[in-house]
Amino acid sequence: MNDRDYLFSLTRGIKAVNKRKFYKIAERRLNRLIKPKGSLGRLEDFVKDVVAITEEERPRLNNKFVCVFAGDHGVVEEGVSLFKQDVTAQMVRNFLSGGAAINTIADSVGANVLVVDVGINADPADLEAYNSRGENLKTDLINADLADLEALSLKAYSYSAPSSSGFVSCKIRKGTSNICKGPAMTAGEAIKSILKGIEIAGIVKEKGAGICATGDMGIGNTTPASAITCFYSKKAPKLVCGRGTGVNADVIKKKAEIIEKAIKLNIPEGGDAIEVLAGAGGLEIGAIAGFILGCAISRIPVVVDGFISTAGALTALNINPSVSDYMFLGHLSKERGHKTAVKLIGKTPILDLSMRLGEGTGAVIAMKIIETAMNMYNNMLTFDEAGVIASKLNR
Amino acid sequence: MNDRDYLFSLTRGIKAVNKRKFYKIAERRLNRLIKPKGSLGRLEDFVKDVVAITEEERPRLNNKFVCVFAGDHGVVEEGVSLFKQDVTAQMVRNFLSGGAAINTIADSVGANVLVVDVGINADPADLEAYNSRGENLKTDLINADLADLEALSLKAYSYSAPSSSGFVSCKIRKGTSNICKGPAMTAGEAIKSILKGIEIAGIVKEKGAGICATGDMGIGNTTPASAITCFYSKKAPKLVCGRGTGVNADVIKKKAEIIEKAIKLNIPEGGDAIEVLAGAGGLEIGAIAGFILGCAISRIPVVVDGFISTAGALTALNINPSVSDYMFLGHLSKERGHKTAVKLIGKTPILDLSMRLGEGTGAVIAMKIIETAMNMYNNMLTFDEAGVIASKLNR
Repeated sequence: MNDRDYLFSLTRGIKAVNKRKFYKIAERRLNRLIKPKGSLGRLEDFVKDVVAITEEERPRLNNKFVCVFAGDHGVVEEGVSLFKQDVTAQMVRNFLSGGAAINTIADSVGANVLVVDVGINADPADLEAYNSRGENLKTDLINADLADLEALSLKAYSYSAPSSSGFVSCKIRKGTSNICKGPAMTAGEAIKSILKGIEIAGIVKEKGAGICATGDMGIGNTTPASAITCFYSKKAPKLVCGRGTGVNADVIKKKAEIIEKAIKLNIPEGGDAIEVLAGAGGLEIGAIAGFILGCAISRIPVVVDGFISTAGALTALNINPSVSDYMFLGHLSKERGHKTAVKLIGKTPILDLSMRLGEGTGAVIAMKIIETAMNMYNNMLTFDEAGVIASKLNR
Repeated sequence: MNDRDYLFSLTRGIKAVNKRKFYKIAERRLNRLIKPKGSLGRLEDFVKDVVAITEEERPRLNNKFVCVFAGDHGVVEEGVSLFKQDVTAQMVRNFLSGGAAINTIADSVGANVLVVDVGINADPADLEAYNSRGENLKTDLINADLADLEALSLKAYSYSAPSSSGFVSCKIRKGTSNICKGPAMTAGEAIKSILKGIEIAGIVKEKGAGICATGDMGIGNTTPASAITCFYSKKAPKLVCGRGTGVNADVIKKKAEIIEKAIKLNIPEGGDAIEVLAGAGGLEIGAIAGFILGCAISRIPVVVDGFISTAGALTALNINPSVSDYMFLGHLSKERGHKTAVKLIGKTPILDLSMRLGEGTGAVIAMKIIETAMNMYNNMLTFDEAGVIASKLNR
């Protein structure tokens, strides 16, 4: 079977969740818990969705994982970012040394961090991480390919311990091509990026993941994410392009022109998810799409991060719209185009904290809130159980 | 010194925080961390506020406490709630057995729960808690007065361990009077309820609290909370009254009439915070006001929960408006009048999850987000530190 057929054979099976059956199961318990009916609002909605996704009456989300997919972008040579391309590799080193935003936030909520190189413009050996004392860290994790991942010993997270980071290199190519001049990648590479994401979801499932979050790292990636969002929303690029890492109005205007051109040049009218991804997307965006699809295949709730991740979500939805039922939107990003993407996806983000960093930072906080909802659902007393206690006190 | 003078001598010293100085200190570090400037949005705002509140350059919020203040309400005899008055005591027993919503949510985020009886219509001895196997729990915590609290051994919370609940009885009276017929309580009792809250804040400070949340338990307490919100906002009760635990439109109408009457009957024109609290408030609302003031006195950031807690916050603000700087609003409650209270306070809630339970449930989740922001601030690498790593890799 070729890659394309394999991808569609894997994803065809994703079905809408059975809300009628599983919402009822969840509601039966929710309405017996010692609180006024419905008084926990969206926490109760999260519970119903998790029960429907997992098809378990009392799911426990023991292990939380955020998978941060990293890739580079040829379009950076047009000056669309404040940072140079090699900052992608530098940031991945920081992830592995435990000192990036995603590490500290994952630490705080007890989530594992798995960094996945699908397209960094650097050799895996150059991604070795050092800690702030200059000690070489996690070299055993470097150069691991998927087959070696089992040896990475991603530990169940213990509170207040340092982040349990892992790294896997499954590079498809060293960054995309400049979308101003031609497609970001071939259709075959686009499909491969999605397949890698699906594979990673299978692996974290085996590692005991109960809930996952998506994350991204890729200097310049608001440009392809904006292109994907523009294509699916049919909105003019100037209405979608935003500041990214903090560029000025001139650069935003330039981004819009680049996107306009790239869509015309590289994506056929009415293009499908693969054509859009290959034409103006990114390797990490494809992998995020695959990761979301893979979570759905494995019945793992998946929390989608901000603007880059929703471009992955849009890609996934255009492969199989039923994947929507397995997704939560972690937060509303401050990046301009995110509202457009969120509207297309049609879900209300869990948080609205004006964040615009990526890396999975918003999704990880939202993942903790879903876990908290499940803790409530699983561990609260029912009125019956409380009544037993009350009767003991009737004296 | 009489109680009133003592209260004002304690609270007079609360000053606006020095934003100019401490925001700058926080920003200096925030802007050196390896992320685009300002990209963590409100997380960065939370950091700046915590630095300004604590006046520490690198505050660490090691211990989180939610203090749940409980009291009964004479107005329940008018049929304003779905539940009978004795459910307040029953719910306190549930808190102590660890099976209420607040316990499971506090468990999930690693917060201590301290339940404080300031006005339950039951004897402390009747509040003994049993677990679901009928075993008598925490009897050593019962009948404790403030002096005994040191013996309660509220332990530093360990992740995934069962909730560390504590209970303290400092009952002022057995519930308020029916505000339809006269004041809820005397001015002296109102002052005492505030003083108890201040005292509790001092005690949790000694226990090592780095951040606190407010919580409430009191059948019928949306009625006094609505009365307080109406008084300060000058809004008609019918625009503020909501469903509480889930009452119907007829009962909401009745609540509005009761509040209209109670304000006219019991609160003088232009009444001060004590007159409003005594006229139509509640003992737990007074204690929440005191707790917020006490946190400000001790320079502890305090996260205010939903509708009942914001009535406490309004009371605190009308004693000393500078207390505003020490508060975070945890969430926007679904209870109708909460938007009015939030607007009066003038802060944006951290979460909006359509919750309307009280107990501190929303504030505790928000407290975790603030803790996460501080973890980011304290533990992320700076560009300099990351540069050291980069130079080691230049080969």
